[in-house]
Amino acid sequence: MSTHRFEPDHYFITLGSHEPVLRVLPGDTVITTTVDARGYDARGEQVATRPNPQTGPFYIEGAEPGDTLVVHLDRLSPNRATGWGNAMLAPNVADPGYVSENPAAFQWETTIWNIDHEKGTASLEQAGARLGTLTLPMSPMLGCFGVAPREGQALSTRTSAECGGNMDYNGFVSGVTVYFPVFMPGALFFLGDGHALQGDGEISGTGIETSFEVQFTVDLIKGKPIEWPRGENGDYIFSVGNARPLDQALQHATTEMLRWLQADYGLSAREATLLLSYAGEYDVGNVFDPAYTMVCKILKRVLPQPT
Amino acid sequence: MSTHRFEPDHYFITLGSHEPVLRVLPGDTVITTTVDARGYDARGEQVATRPNPQTGPFYIEGAEPGDTLVVHLDRLSPNRATGWGNAMLAPNVADPGYVSENPAAFQWETTIWNIDHEKGTASLEQAGARLGTLTLPMSPMLGCFGVAPREGQALSTRTSAECGGNMDYNGFVSGVTVYFPVFMPGALFFLGDGHALQGDGEISGTGIETSFEVQFTVDLIKGKPIEWPRGENGDYIFSVGNARPLDQALQHATTEMLRWLQADYGLSAREATLLLSYAGEYDVGNVFDPAYTMVCKILKRVLPQPT
Amino acid sequence: MSTHRFEPDHYFITLGSHEPVLRVLPGDTVITTTVDARGYDARGEQVATRPNPQTGPFYIEGAEPGDTLVVHLDRLSPNRATGWGNAMLAPNVADPGYVSENPAAFQWETTIWNIDHEKGTASLEQAGARLGTLTLPMSPMLGCFGVAPREGQALSTRTSAECGGNMDYNGFVSGVTVYFPVFMPGALFFLGDGHALQGDGEISGTGIETSFEVQFTVDLIKGKPIEWPRGENGDYIFSVGNARPLDQALQHATTEMLRWLQADYGLSAREATLLLSYAGEYDVGNVFDPAYTMVCKILKRVLPQPT
Amino acid sequence: MSTHRFEPDHYFITLGSHEPVLRVLPGDTVITTTVDARGYDARGEQVATRPNPQTGPFYIEGAEPGDTLVVHLDRLSPNRATGWGNAMLAPNVADPGYVSENPAAFQWETTIWNIDHEKGTASLEQAGARLGTLTLPMSPMLGCFGVAPREGQALSTRTSAECGGNMDYNGFVSGVTVYFPVFMPGALFFLGDGHALQGDGEISGTGIETSFEVQFTVDLIKGKPIEWPRGENGDYIFSVGNARPLDQALQHATTEMLRWLQADYGLSAREATLLLSYAGEYDVGNVFDPAYTMVCKILKRVLPQPT
Repeated sequence: MSTHRFEPDHYFITLGSHEPVLRVLPGDTVITTTVDARGYDARGEQVATRPNPQTGPFYIEGAEPGDTLVVHLDRLSPNRATGWGNAMLAPNVADPGYVSENPAAFQWETTIWNIDHEKGTASLEQAGARLGTLTLPMSPMLGCFGVAPREGQALSTRTSAECGGNMDYNGFVSGVTVYFPVFMPGALFFLGDGHALQGDGEISGTGIETSFEVQFTVDLIKGKPIEWPRGENGDYIFSVGNARPLDQALQHATTEMLRWLQADYGLSAREATLLLSYAGEYDVGNVFDPAYTMVCKILKRVLPQPT
Repeated sequence: MSTHRFEPDHYFITLGSHEPVLRVLPGDTVITTTVDARGYDARGEQVATRPNPQTGPFYIEGAEPGDTLVVHLDRLSPNRATGWGNAMLAPNVADPGYVSENPAAFQWETTIWNIDHEKGTASLEQAGARLGTLTLPMSPMLGCFGVAPREGQALSTRTSAECGGNMDYNGFVSGVTVYFPVFMPGALFFLGDGHALQGDGEISGTGIETSFEVQFTVDLIKGKPIEWPRGENGDYIFSVGNARPLDQALQHATTEMLRWLQADYGLSAREATLLLSYAGEYDVGNVFDPAYTMVCKILKRVLPQPT
Repeated sequence: MSTHRFEPDHYFITLGSHEPVLRVLPGDTVITTTVDARGYDARGEQVATRPNPQTGPFYIEGAEPGDTLVVHLDRLSPNRATGWGNAMLAPNVADPGYVSENPAAFQWETTIWNIDHEKGTASLEQAGARLGTLTLPMSPMLGCFGVAPREGQALSTRTSAECGGNMDYNGFVSGVTVYFPVFMPGALFFLGDGHALQGDGEISGTGIETSFEVQFTVDLIKGKPIEWPRGENGDYIFSVGNARPLDQALQHATTEMLRWLQADYGLSAREATLLLSYAGEYDVGNVFDPAYTMVCKILKRVLPQPT
Repeated sequence: MSTHRFEPDHYFITLGSHEPVLRVLPGDTVITTTVDARGYDARGEQVATRPNPQTGPFYIEGAEPGDTLVVHLDRLSPNRATGWGNAMLAPNVADPGYVSENPAAFQWETTIWNIDHEKGTASLEQAGARLGTLTLPMSPMLGCFGVAPREGQALSTRTSAECGGNMDYNGFVSGVTVYFPVFMPGALFFLGDGHALQGDGEISGTGIETSFEVQFTVDLIKGKPIEWPRGENGDYIFSVGNARPLDQALQHATTEMLRWLQADYGLSAREATLLLSYAGEYDVGNVFDPAYTMVCKILKRVLPQPT
């Protein structure tokens, strides 16, 4: 159970079967850094190109297709004093007629936010005549992270799939444990695209984008295949569907949760259905990226013990 | 500001320009009852036919097209000792391949739940080998309510639209204020389809369906047109989009919130966008009915005072 | 088998259970007129209000819920010298980013076309610097027609459903036989919204809109329920799905064709699937109206005789 | 202008920046072979693994990002005596409720078809009690072909994107000229997945899958970027959108056609809109693969000369 400090010197804009930057064992902890979505690091220097350049891949010894990779997000910390974010809506989230009648609201503009690490806030000065300085609480999260996809694919970090990727879900914060299906030997874990905060849906196409220091701990569940990313925090277990349209992302998340409840909690299909139908919840991850993200979650306290 | 007690003797399964059952003034309060989605009342007797038979319509004096109807949900109380709910998933919420391979999970079955008014819970005995008796906290809500639609339409209570209807959103609970566009003289307010509780999405096609006693208070904002239903609780303001697919419901809700923030809170388009993008949230209402429901919401504490 | 000449003096903008204007027997023929989508008649006078005012309803004696109404479109003839049509795209048919960057292409503009009945063409003068006068062959069709919907609904003539309505499919031309499910006693057949011609998808939101003289002949198939409109021409049988998104319209049309092939042509599910998969075709009706329309069709010559 | 005969000895299941198998010049012709979707060749031997193994990539000298690759499909000839195809529907093309109630219709089954090269037909014996032997005319097409995608991605041959790929459009037959955007140096052209015939939509998930001999001729349009695949046959020009849902595929195809008509035919946005709206047509490519395919087309005879 070693702790590795890893300083990246190159980055990837696809999740694919690239040469590993570090080999780690199940149980190991890694402390590393990520650059922002346009490749700017802690010093504000551009060291990689957009979109969402990734640190990694980390090769997890012993990981084989059909296993589940466990990634505990121990700590996600923005590591510079500013972040940036778009100040316009993505045109796909508004009524088409509203877009054609109000095109100015959809013109690209970016803003610089000040990060106050002590107060745990991000602030935009001159947000507008009514808002003045807009200050919001930080909730640092990873926007894009995951493993190498199946069959030797290399997927753009613009999008996401069964292997994770650019899910842009604001529930991926410190303390969360994430589960990924392993498709390639070593799993090949990548991470990047930290957001100091993000609204549901990432409807401007960004969170408050900045560079991070990240500490994570990996583990492996041998011989256990899952189909979509899953996660767990103190209160909830959740499954993650990535697809367009949102309806299909919801189908993936719901189906994965059904499988989870049956396989790991010993529930019959009827029991799983009753719990999901009357106690299940959904979160909207992103509705901007090529694949949207929908999360299906359920309170641990209404679940029986895992079997 | 009178309080009316109204005991219905007939019900409607469309929201349309039907003969009003009662005429009330802005500021008036109504105490009435609703039957469950199949038309069973507090005594367990069937007095109307499915789907979602409605009490009303209530004619609000002075309401004209272009006004906004305000409905404060003062109290929503299940008024019998049982409710019923489906124990299978709606096939549209799971992956199509999962449906064809696990058809048994989608076969229609209904269950009877016991309502404990004192403890505020609903319980299903024999939910399954692992769950035993499944007990969940109640959170009584109205599934289907709204006003007569535009242009003399009569819309089935299976679905929803700009006028409200079968939105099946579990946020429509006691204490919430709801705003509807007025399309026809008198607005013609209908209500029904109470759920003792419901998960996000109503993915079995039902909540725990039961009859209710409901107290509500109406008001009118003259000369203020809105395009979609809106709501407000202690913490949030929210807008409601009803459409298929979910992406379009989200577009309607997002666009309506943009309009709201600009018209009532004095925000520029840029300010509204910044708030929504970095502090906005989404709730999934239903993904079962002919029109799905998506809710866009924002914390009041990040908003400036209404102008 | 009478032939009725019927001159309308009022019109409806919902398909609903309105008072019939004429009662006819199965086998009867009706010759009548329709006004254009904004209510202008053969003389160019506005006699009704938009959208898509309907002639009818015609009560077919003996028609009961569970029957199939047969409507043969004997003749569809534009009856004035001009039509009108939009000269901008509907913003929902283009990429959202294209809309926000080229809003001028989506600004509402209408054009007047000259109809040459002898040549069978419609022409727009000054279509632009490169096109000069744009002349296209006419192919007169009905955009909006159908029967009263189930459960006493009254549906706007903006949209369509199981009962037909504003399907805007350019295959509904002279010589076609259309089949509608009967939901209400007498079926209550409506018709209107003639187009001199229309491209696939009705992507500007209109065809070349004009008033028509229409001759149609009705018949009844007793005790035969169908779920969606169907049609037949010399070469094809086809089924019509009306819904959003297009994927769902396609699901409805495909499923209805499966049912048709099995029930009327004696095919097993496997045989129906083989034919549809390897010889089936799709047409896009409209992608503009609240419900889109997708048509599934198959050549009669690859089908066995109906049983 | 050489003619190359190329015999593949390995295949790829991603479109990516793989080592070229042959370098050719603009104007050159290649005669080669493709294996079927499961990797079986002309002798019926399995020489590659599914899905849709590709011959290539062919490096076109001089091709650079921002150019357009021209591929003329000179001849597509099935080169063995059998093909295979699924005999069940894809569950995503039918109503979800139909799937859960008729799961047997969606159970995987494959059939072997006899190819009669002389008569130009494919036949399935024992198609069923009513159909007996089902014989359909061949119309050989390429299901999956395209170029390496942008940014070093490697995309599964299950799906398609701006670079082409598994579009499964039955209009890609002999005589058609196809245009692809060039994203990587040399373009890197791949081809495979021949179908002896296929219905619209590929709703069983296959055409009649077989190995092919293919002759194609490449050319290059320097400095001309396009965004989506385009094509041309004797009667039509067409654009191809690949995405889910079908609505989005249609948006891509429509937008690409708008750009084409304006850039190459000198039309104003208004002229392009008029032509598309009143004379445009749509074809459904596939509604089975991870990305669906929609084609927007217009008759050459209604177009002015290219500028």
